[in-house]
Amino acid sequence: MSLTASSTPQGFSTFITNLGIRDTTEDFVFLRSDVPCVADGVFTQSLFAGPSVTISRQNLQNGQAQGIIIISKNANVANGAVGTADAEEIIQLVAQETGIAAENLAIASTGVIGRRYPIEKIRAGLVGMGQKLTSADFDLAARGIMTTDTVSKIAARQVGNAQLVGIAKGVGMIEPNMATMLAFFFTDAAISVNTLRQIFRSTIDKTFNCLSIDTDTSTSDSAVILANGLAGEVPEAEFAGALQEIAHELVLKIARDGEGATKVIEVTVDSAANYAQAKRVAKAIVNSPLVKTAVYGADPNWGRVAMAIGKCEDERDINPDQVVIRFDEVQVYPNTFQAENLEKLKEIMSQEKVNIHVSLNIGADVATVWGCDLTEGYVEINGKYST
Amino acid sequence: MSLTASSTPQGFSTFITNLGIRDTTEDFVFLRSDVPCVADGVFTQSLFAGPSVTISRQNLQNGQAQGIIIISKNANVANGAVGTADAEEIIQLVAQETGIAAENLAIASTGVIGRRYPIEKIRAGLVGMGQKLTSADFDLAARGIMTTDTVSKIAARQVGNAQLVGIAKGVGMIEPNMATMLAFFFTDAAISVNTLRQIFRSTIDKTFNCLSIDTDTSTSDSAVILANGLAGEVPEAEFAGALQEIAHELVLKIARDGEGATKVIEVTVDSAANYAQAKRVAKAIVNSPLVKTAVYGADPNWGRVAMAIGKCEDERDINPDQVVIRFDEVQVYPNTFQAENLEKLKEIMSQEKVNIHVSLNIGADVATVWGCDLTEGYVEINGKYST
Repeated sequence: MSLTASSTPQGFSTFITNLGIRDTTEDFVFLRSDVPCVADGVFTQSLFAGPSVTISRQNLQNGQAQGIIIISKNANVANGAVGTADAEEIIQLVAQETGIAAENLAIASTGVIGRRYPIEKIRAGLVGMGQKLTSADFDLAARGIMTTDTVSKIAARQVGNAQLVGIAKGVGMIEPNMATMLAFFFTDAAISVNTLRQIFRSTIDKTFNCLSIDTDTSTSDSAVILANGLAGEVPEAEFAGALQEIAHELVLKIARDGEGATKVIEVTVDSAANYAQAKRVAKAIVNSPLVKTAVYGADPNWGRVAMAIGKCEDERDINPDQVVIRFDEVQVYPNTFQAENLEKLKEIMSQEKVNIHVSLNIGADVATVWGCDLTEGYVEINGKYST
Repeated sequence: MSLTASSTPQGFSTFITNLGIRDTTEDFVFLRSDVPCVADGVFTQSLFAGPSVTISRQNLQNGQAQGIIIISKNANVANGAVGTADAEEIIQLVAQETGIAAENLAIASTGVIGRRYPIEKIRAGLVGMGQKLTSADFDLAARGIMTTDTVSKIAARQVGNAQLVGIAKGVGMIEPNMATMLAFFFTDAAISVNTLRQIFRSTIDKTFNCLSIDTDTSTSDSAVILANGLAGEVPEAEFAGALQEIAHELVLKIARDGEGATKVIEVTVDSAANYAQAKRVAKAIVNSPLVKTAVYGADPNWGRVAMAIGKCEDERDINPDQVVIRFDEVQVYPNTFQAENLEKLKEIMSQEKVNIHVSLNIGADVATVWGCDLTEGYVEINGKYST
């Protein structure tokens, strides 16, 4: 999609360029609001979180921000004190150039771990950037934050008179916990910091935190939202609904662009004792390499789904005799096999999005998670990347 | 390896045949001791454990057994009441044919989930089997329990005057919890049931329970040991040492034969707060698809090891500034990079067994776990198997 002028939130500007961090594609994205914003951010729980995460977490604690710096192709993680100093220097340089207080800036980085930024190139490239800001180009920003992504990920909705846009990136090292690889949301809606936090966190929890490409949690996961208020107040429920839709759309785009992926897998577990149980079982299924390869092979091998449920060994209230497994609406366990179903099942498994539906028949809670199939492409990409 | 007559424990006999369960290779193995044995078994924790597991768990509770039935190419899992009836019927048939009490028989099954045994063929094939037992051929038994294994797995040691032999199978759906896919140990040593249990369970915990091919826990994992006592008593420590060596050898054979695997990965985490922490961190590393593909690509990408440590989010006492990461003896983090190391690292990563060594520098506990690389071969095998 491309945003039109009328679907772009008011009062944002961007500076997007190549600083030569790894190659010649865009690798530096700065997004500024003309006025201070109500803001929130959620970040990776990784013990090896980099300085971009720790600084942004600190700077967003007061619920205010006016700009975000996003560096792609280098994660600036596991670089020790020099990595922290580099991140702080970049924040200071941007603050000086733009006149925004350093503590009102967030920063995010994505790319290879354990390699220092080419800091000389970044210093040189930022000179005069304050003068180079133009009215916000979110499409270009979505492309500028890509690493090995094959498509850019952007989604937008109108809420009352306000616009809400989200951009995201990520293809591998993705099982976010508290946030995804990188996702940013911008709106000109006016909203209180408490309402924003409550809506944002609950949305992330049901969308990005329900996504897993390969069970590997990134050191750099960050999701940030800025609301500058220029379009005035909007109905809260409508805002929450639009944010949920955008986040869901971005999650599906990430799953579809998963490294080597050919299909999206959506797993819904219902009638669970509680939401946490439903999500644990759904994650066990969507993360199983044997389920993922079965989906790749379009094989309705429900035995692997049973196996994945079975390995949730702490969920002792799950009774295999009460569990029901379906691919789309076709029941496969308990085995009510009818010959005409096999053709139907092969069709279902060949779709671009494969739905696995499990009923635990214990309680009333439900969770849906997303992932993708596991193909030779994932192995090829990750056997070669880096070093 | 092949066992010679002198390395075979006394007083065991076997009946190994093809019953046509899936194809024309051996699929039925029966091992009998001439006299009752002290015995122990540990089994999968899967919620979807099949009747073979539940019956064997029950029958071994008193620490006695005289024979084991092993059926390969069909797991008899998730078949409901008919699956349980089939397993019970097979036990009864073997009991009648051999004169061993049904409660002194264990049974194990491995293969596809959710398909019924061809029970008519099994009934026909077992007629007269009691007359067909010959002196034990453990090499043939090791081959008879294979499914998609490419090599048979057997190991043996002498302990005093006694012999100890172990056979195992497994290539995928392997992250055992309390036992591996299938492993069986036979000895003519005399040992008390309490000592055997203590030694057996601690050995399995440090060997098979430290193995992961693909994070997928089988519904059929079983490890059983039979000691018939015919060779008399042996030094306890020596017996424990020999069992540990055999189990370790079988674990490495399984890792090496992991589906599509080209390399074994051994991860040691030391100076941990406790053993459980060391094992959790080591498992996170050996299970990371990004670490596995890096090993496949012979890429010394230690950033992925740092990422995998980082995702152990509950281990809040791990401080990234104190962690040390090495490939073999070469330190890669904190980054003390020297040009001559790169060649050395590429050499290390190209070996058949890649050692990843992490020091947490918190306490004194250490754990070692084993796995294998992730290749296109794994995807090919599992995208095609079944249905």
